Amino acid sequence: MDGRRSGDIAGISAPGRIAGPAEGISPEELALAARNHGMPLEALSYDLTPAGLHYVLVHYDIPAAAGDTGAWTLSVDGRVRTPLTLDLAALRSFPAVTHRVTMECAGNGRARLKPRPVSQPWLVEAVGTAEWTGVPLRILLAECGVQPDAVEAVFTGADHGVERGVEQDYQRSLPVADATSGDPEVLVAYGMNGGPLPPQHGCPLRLVVPGWYGMAHVKWLRGITLVDTPFEGFQQKVAYRYKQSADDPGVPVTRIAPRALMIPPGFPDFMSRTRVVRPGPVHLEGRAWSGRAPVTRVDVSWDEGDSWHEAGLDPPDGHDWAWRRWRATWTAEPGSHVLSARATDASGDAQPVDQPWNRGGFGNNLVQRVAVHCLPADDASV
Amino acid sequence: MDGRRSGDIAGISAPGRIAGPAEGISPEELALAARNHGMPLEALSYDLTPAGLHYVLVHYDIPAAAGDTGAWTLSVDGRVRTPLTLDLAALRSFPAVTHRVTMECAGNGRARLKPRPVSQPWLVEAVGTAEWTGVPLRILLAECGVQPDAVEAVFTGADHGVERGVEQDYQRSLPVADATSGDPEVLVAYGMNGGPLPPQHGCPLRLVVPGWYGMAHVKWLRGITLVDTPFEGFQQKVAYRYKQSADDPGVPVTRIAPRALMIPPGFPDFMSRTRVVRPGPVHLEGRAWSGRAPVTRVDVSWDEGDSWHEAGLDPPDGHDWAWRRWRATWTAEPGSHVLSARATDASGDAQPVDQPWNRGGFGNNLVQRVAVHCLPADDASV
Repeated sequence: MDGRRSGDIAGISAPGRIAGPAEGISPEELALAARNHGMPLEALSYDLTPAGLHYVLVHYDIPAAAGDTGAWTLSVDGRVRTPLTLDLAALRSFPAVTHRVTMECAGNGRARLKPRPVSQPWLVEAVGTAEWTGVPLRILLAECGVQPDAVEAVFTGADHGVERGVEQDYQRSLPVADATSGDPEVLVAYGMNGGPLPPQHGCPLRLVVPGWYGMAHVKWLRGITLVDTPFEGFQQKVAYRYKQSADDPGVPVTRIAPRALMIPPGFPDFMSRTRVVRPGPVHLEGRAWSGRAPVTRVDVSWDEGDSWHEAGLDPPDGHDWAWRRWRATWTAEPGSHVLSARATDASGDAQPVDQPWNRGGFGNNLVQRVAVHCLPADDASV
Repeated sequence: MDGRRSGDIAGISAPGRIAGPAEGISPEELALAARNHGMPLEALSYDLTPAGLHYVLVHYDIPAAAGDTGAWTLSVDGRVRTPLTLDLAALRSFPAVTHRVTMECAGNGRARLKPRPVSQPWLVEAVGTAEWTGVPLRILLAECGVQPDAVEAVFTGADHGVERGVEQDYQRSLPVADATSGDPEVLVAYGMNGGPLPPQHGCPLRLVVPGWYGMAHVKWLRGITLVDTPFEGFQQKVAYRYKQSADDPGVPVTRIAPRALMIPPGFPDFMSRTRVVRPGPVHLEGRAWSGRAPVTRVDVSWDEGDSWHEAGLDPPDGHDWAWRRWRATWTAEPGSHVLSARATDASGDAQPVDQPWNRGGFGNNLVQRVAVHCLPADDASV
C-alpha cells in the first residue's frame, strides 16, 4: 500500500513550491492551519500541556478506526526470530514506563521563512509536552529477537493519503541502534498525561521518540517491520530532509534543534496579537528545550537582539527530554519593544538570529519575536 | 475595566478592514489560525466531540488564573434583591443538569467570503458538540431575585485584551427573557463531556446558551450583573453585528443559522485536501444543525449543486440543541466532482447557495464544497 503511484492519482497533488515574494498564505495553507493547531503560547505556563492545547499535525485524516481499541493489533515482523501480533491487553501486560517528552513539529517556524516553503504554515507554536506511558520498544524488540542483519525498524501508521502523487500509509523508520536505545528510550505508547491517547494523538497506539521532531513519533501505529536495507519510503527519502533545492538529496531531519519560547507578557490586541504592558518590572517566563543535549542557558533581549541578558533556568529535574522553565525580569519603559529569548544547549548549539533556510522549511529555530507596547505611565486606562 | 480607551492604546489596533481582491491570508490572520482551531471534519463521526477536537476561539489569552479553581468565585449582582458570591462548591450544591449542545463560532465561513473580512479566518470547521454540565442560570437568578426593572444580564469573563482600541474584559449580555428561559435553558457550566472544563473551554466556569453562536457562551465567567438599560459594551454594540458597511449600526448576531457538513469521503491529498475515492457506491455521512429550529431535511449534491438528493436523517433523539446525523449513498464515477450538503430547518430556513456577505463575516452558512477525485476503475494503486 505504500508508495503506489499512478498517473491519475499523481494529478491531484501539486508539486512542492516556494511562495512568491508578495504572496500571502494560500487557501491550501489556511485549510491545513484550520485543521492542525499549535499550542497557545500562554500554555507555556504548564509543565504538562493539557489535552487540546498540545500541538497537533495530522498528515491525512485521523483514522476512523482510531476509537476501536478492542480490535487494534500491532504486528512486529520482518528480520526478527519470532514475529508477534499484540493486542492492547498484551501490550499492557508488559511493565509500563512513563517519560516526559517535549515534542515539536519539524516544520515549526516554516511560515516565518523568507521565501516561504508552501506547506503547513507554522509560526512558532508547534510544540507541547506530555507524559507518555507505554512499553519500551527495546523490550518488544528483545522479545521478538532482532536478526543481526536488521539495520532499521519501519513503523507504519493507519493514516492513509496522498502526498506529492504518492499514495501511502504514513511510514517512518529508525536505525536499530536508536530503536533499541535505553537513553532516549523509545516507547510504544498507549497513554498520555495519565489517560488514554486522544484520537488526534494516535489512539490507541503511537511511537514516542524522545528528542526527535514529531515526524518520527508515528501515530495510529499498527506495524513494526525490521528491514535489512535502509527504508526509502516517501516520508524518509523525499520529505523531512534538509534540502537547498528540489534536486538536492538533502540530509535527514532527526533531532530537535534548541529553542526557547516566552509567554507573551501583558495582554494582547485581538487582531495583531501585539502585547500591552504598563511601565515598571515585567515578569518574563517561558520554556526552553533541545533534542540534542540539555539546555544550559537562555538569554533574553528587549531591544530586538542588540543586547542579551542571561535568564534564570530551573534546575535539572530528571526529565532530560522535556522543556525547562526560565525566568527573567524586564523593566518596561513606554514605547514599542521587541522581546526575544534564545536557548543554548550543552552541545554548544544556540538558536540562530538569522534564519536557517531550507526548501522544506524544517528546523527553523530562529529566535522568537514578541511585539510589546508599553503604555505611558499616566495612561488613563486601567 | 471595560471600554476604557486612550489615544495611546488605540494606536496598537488596526481598524476593521476587508481584504483586497488578490490579497492572501495575512500574517495576523495566520497568527489567529495557529492559536485557534477548528474541528477536523472527520470528527463529525462522533456524537460528542472529543477533547481537543472541538473548535476553540479565544479572543485574548486563556487567563492565567484558569487553573486556580479553588479561589474562583462568581458574583451575581446589579438589579437583584440578594447579590450572591458563589464559589465552585456552592455552585455544585445546586442540582446539576446536563445539556448536549452544538456550538459554532459566529465567524465560521468568514474566510470563504469574497471579499474577505480580515479577522479569524475560519473556513467551515468552527463547530463541535459537547455535553455541558452545570447549574441552570434561571435557578441562580431565581435565588437572587431579579428586580422587575432589569432588562438584561451582563456576563463578564476573565479574559482581558484590546480590540479595535478598546481595552476590555470580554463581556456579553442576554435579555432577561433568554437568561431565564427553560427552553433553551442557559447553563452556568463547570463540566464538559463528564470531566471538568479544559482551560481553553472556560475552566472553571462558562456560560452555555443552547442555539446561540459561540460569542454568547462567555468563558472564564466571573460575574453576572443585571442591568436596567441595554448593555452597550464592545462585543454587543460594535462587534457581532450583521453590518453592510462600517457605519451601519447593523443587526445583532444571535442564533445559529442552519448548516450541514459532510465527513470528506475517501482519503486526502496532504496539501490540497482534495479527496480520492474509487468508483462505485460511496457512503456519505455528516451532521446538520440549526439554532433556530430543528433540522428537518438535508439534501446532498454531487454535481456542484445542479441537482440535490434528499439524505436520510437520524430520528430525533431528544437533544434538540445538538446536531443530527445524516447519511446518503453516492455512486462515484471516474473524474472530478464537487460534493455539497444543505440543511433546512423547521422554520423553513435553508442554507444559501449564494454567499450571505456582511462586513464582519458572520453567519456565512453557504453550502460546503468538497472536491473529490474518483480514480479510473483500472487504476493501478490499491
